[in-house]
This record gives sequence, structure tokens and C-alpha cells, in this order.
Amino acid sequence: MPFELKILGCNSATPAYGRHHTAQLLHAGKHYFLIDCGEGTQERLTQYKAHTWKINHIFISHLHGDHYLGLMGLLFTMHLLKRTQDLHIYGQRGLDEIILAQLRYSDSKLNYTLVFHELNPNNKELIFEDGQIRVNSFPLKHRIPCCGFLFSEKQKPFRINKEKLTDDFPLQAIAALKQGKEYIDEKTGKKYSVNEYTLPPRKSRSYAYCSDTKYDEQLIPFIKNADLLYHEATFLADKEKWAHLTYHSTTHEAAKIAKAANVGKLLIGHYSARYKDVTPFVEEAREVFENSLLSEEGQLIEVED
Amino acid sequence: MPFELKILGCNSATPAYGRHHTAQLLHAGKHYFLIDCGEGTQERLTQYKAHTWKINHIFISHLHGDHYLGLMGLLFTMHLLKRTQDLHIYGQRGLDEIILAQLRYSDSKLNYTLVFHELNPNNKELIFEDGQIRVNSFPLKHRIPCCGFLFSEKQKPFRINKEKLTDDFPLQAIAALKQGKEYIDEKTGKKYSVNEYTLPPRKSRSYAYCSDTKYDEQLIPFIKNADLLYHEATFLADKEKWAHLTYHSTTHEAAKIAKAANVGKLLIGHYSARYKDVTPFVEEAREVFENSLLSEEGQLIEVED
Repeated sequence: MPFELKILGCNSATPAYGRHHTAQLLHAGKHYFLIDCGEGTQERLTQYKAHTWKINHIFISHLHGDHYLGLMGLLFTMHLLKRTQDLHIYGQRGLDEIILAQLRYSDSKLNYTLVFHELNPNNKELIFEDGQIRVNSFPLKHRIPCCGFLFSEKQKPFRINKEKLTDDFPLQAIAALKQGKEYIDEKTGKKYSVNEYTLPPRKSRSYAYCSDTKYDEQLIPFIKNADLLYHEATFLADKEKWAHLTYHSTTHEAAKIAKAANVGKLLIGHYSARYKDVTPFVEEAREVFENSLLSEEGQLIEVED
Repeated sequence: MPFELKILGCNSATPAYGRHHTAQLLHAGKHYFLIDCGEGTQERLTQYKAHTWKINHIFISHLHGDHYLGLMGLLFTMHLLKRTQDLHIYGQRGLDEIILAQLRYSDSKLNYTLVFHELNPNNKELIFEDGQIRVNSFPLKHRIPCCGFLFSEKQKPFRINKEKLTDDFPLQAIAALKQGKEYIDEKTGKKYSVNEYTLPPRKSRSYAYCSDTKYDEQLIPFIKNADLLYHEATFLADKEKWAHLTYHSTTHEAAKIAKAANVGKLLIGHYSARYKDVTPFVEEAREVFENSLLSEEGQLIEVED
């Protein structure tokens, strides 16, 4: 099952040096989750051959322009592309008002239904769940209400150990074993135990997204052990005071959070437009947390199971 | 005095083939007038080295997304660039509400003042005037309230015929003659007539902008004799019925208006995303009006005086 992240935008407040506002696309199983949607996201989706028409869920962390100003244009383009499927939008209070006012003044009636889900900026909450995946929002410490998101695969089926399969292996046994349940054949009385006939389930992967936040150890429990953590690093380490004042983080701070949360990999981004070369960002992050990566537009990051 | 138009975006509802949503920058004398502001305009302003910080007036023809969705991001970027000068925005009813809601939810207080001017979508109106230039809005026939804009240089000073200048030429005579007034020297009684001492003023140039409109002969009086006319041509001539239904125009229709209005040059744009190659647009327009041009992004069109 795919679990991979496409970077569509990695800069902070102003686009610069070919870097655009924040947007990411998580392809998890059958889902294409769009995470934040800065200005021009629709163009990046086309450029990187991402699947605009397969996006059914859009998660907007907060209402600073660099995280949502591409949404309205994307909604209109989805309409022009003859979308009919419901579109779920998860955002802070006010996003619905902003969108509905623009639909009203443009006298637009979309071909599809928008379903708004208001985020709770104060507590962790389950905001989406199906058979494969669970999405939680959790509070970040930013200048306005802001949420991070945790995308977690649910436990996967136990894998049948093919070496143990026989021609007369009962189908019902397979179904039960996959669910981690023992099976007893009524006719023969033979017992098929989970230990003997299965291999452990494939790993359930997780991706934690922390868009805009100052250094905040309180978010560690929400992202603990995530396989991949995106944590903003707007500034290099020497700008810690400025980062604090503007409710942003530095490279070292993002990496400290990654280390304390024991994540698999750290992905940093949301670079300030003051930096032309972002290589020092990853160099600095690695001083604290070796397994750090730079967000780069067009890049695909696979999370292995 | 410069009077030149920079094309920043020339496509209609969906960006495609490297073409973006509508935006133009008219550099007229000391003014940089931004005309419409589709998504990504701030990036195009940077890309084409236009003078973002010199823009003090933004004209938004109507509230379809492809004509204004870049405005909010541009306002934020102007703030980050430490703008302090007032910014005048001319738009249809509702644009202020849309902008103010987004400022409120992002808890943003701009460093500069926004001055909103509500357009009258039903009648021609003078919306800006200074010593050099006059801007009128006029109604277009689109699906929602929509205005065109006419930018006209005022009459320029008469030019002193340098061949007639003498060493004892009175300074007051020059000032009066430039204004087209005869001057009589009180001491000598000598008369300096306009006819004898001046050449006619340089031509006052004009640019008419018709963003989104169906074919409408009623707009001809508003744009009569303009040196440069931008008239949308969303579709090729064979899509006349579809153009009519969607309140847009074809190449032939735009060119018919240009011809009837006796303009100097016709500039077409707002191409539908269905067309990869837009060369046929100008070929078709020239069948009706020879002096037709294609809008192409990055292009600078000078209007000569």
C-alpha cells in the first residue's frame, strides 16, 4: 500500500527562488490527502502530475495566507474539471465563511458538495477515519489558531506464512488468521494458531505534519514515534530569538523535537525568503538529528513499511 | 512619458501551458496601475522585474477567481516588503468584505492603509484623476457585475518651438504658451501667439481594457479611438455560440469591436485552457482587424505618442 508524500511547496510567507508556499500531497492507500494549499498549488499539482481529481480531503492547518490562498482557485478548477464527488475541507473557524463569501460574489454553484469540518485548535481530535487510516489534528503554538495533523495507518492484517500453506488449507482459516484469530477446523479438529501460521502484520506507518509553530515540547506526545515528521524550520539556528518572536522554529529546534519524539525521519521546510541556499538548513538539523531531510518541490518521500 | 503595458497573465479560468490567470501592469507616467490580479500575480511581478512596490492602484474588473485570487497574497507580500504608502483598490461590491474577512481571520494588521473604491457596474464613471491621467470604469456584459477600464492621458502641454526661442524670450511667455495661452509682454507690448511659437501637444494616449465580456456593441462608445484596446477572446471563431452562452467573446467578435471602435491596436487574451497553441487567435482576429496582437506573458507593449 502506498504511503508517500509529494512536496508541492516549501517556502514561508513570500515565494522566492522558485520556492512556493506550503502544500503537500500525502498518498496513503487509496487516499490523496492535500495538506495546506498555498497560492499556486493547483499549478504545482499539474506540474508534478499529482492527481488533482483524486483529492477528496484537504487539510488546512491555519488561516495565514501562505497556507491556504491556493484553495479557492483549486476549488474553481475542480469545478471546471467536472468534479462531482464531495470534497471534505478541514480548517479553522472562518475558512467556510471566506470560501462561501467568494462563491457568493462570483455567483458560483460548484458541481460538487463542500463538506466543512471545523478543527479544534486546543485539543487532539480524531477528524477522519476509515478502514485503512486515521487522521488526528493536534494543537500547534502559532500566532493564530493552528493545527498539526497525524496520519496513521491502522493495524494491518497478519500475513499468512506461505511456507505453511497446504493444498487443503481451509479458506476460513486464512480469513481468521489475517485478523489475528486462531481457527479450529470443525471437521478435523485441527487448530490453526496465529503464532504458527502467520508472520506479523506489516508495519503501520505514520506521518506527522507540524506546519507553523514555535518550539513547543508539548507537541511531542502527539507525534511520538512517527515514521516521518514534517516540522517547520523557518530560520537557521542563529535566528532563535526572531523565530520565537514570530512563533516559528529554527533548524535546531525542529531537530530537537524530532529527537525527543523519536521519529524515523525529520523533514524540514517553510524556509524564510531571506535564504537563497537552503543547504545549511539540513546541515544544521543533522547536527542534532542525523536523519533529517530538506523539503524540495517535486520531491517524493516514500515511507517504507 | 512612458505609457506601456506589461502582460503578467493571459489565460482564462484555468492556468495551462505556462499561461496564467489575467493580470496586467500599465506604466503610465509616474503610475504603475495593476489591472486584475489572478492567482500567482505576485510571482509574475517578480519574474518580470515589474515594480511591485510602486503599485499604488489596483483595478479589479470583477469577482471571478481568475481575475482577483492573487490579490490577497500580493497584499500580504506588500506588507512583508514594509510598504507604508496607501493602496487604492477599485473593485466590485464584495471585494472589501472578502479582503477584510481574510485579514481578520489571519489576525493581520497591514503596515499600510487599504482604500477601497466600489465600482459602478452600470454606468461609465470617473474613478481616478490627477494632473496626468484619468481612469474611467465602464460596464461590460458578463455573468456577474463587471467593469472595463479606460486609462487616458490628459491633454499634454503645447511644445515651445525651439527655433523661435530668442535670448530675451520672457519666461512667463513660455509658461503661458505651454498652456495654450497667448502672452503679451507688458513692457514691450509684444504678442506671443500660440500659433506662432508652439508646436501642437504630444498625443494623449489611451488604453482600454475589456476583461470578460460577451460581444456587446454598447461598449463601443466607451472605448472609441483608444490607441490600444485589450478585448478578451476566450474562444476561436467557431465557438461563437458557446462564447455567447458563457458571456465571453471570440476572436472575430473582439476584432469587430476593435474595428467599430476605430482603435489603434487590438490586443487579445484570456485564452481558454482548451487551446495549446494560441497562434490561430491572432490569425483569426487579423481577418477582421489587421492591427491585432496576442497577449503573451512577459511582453511589453509600448503605446507611442
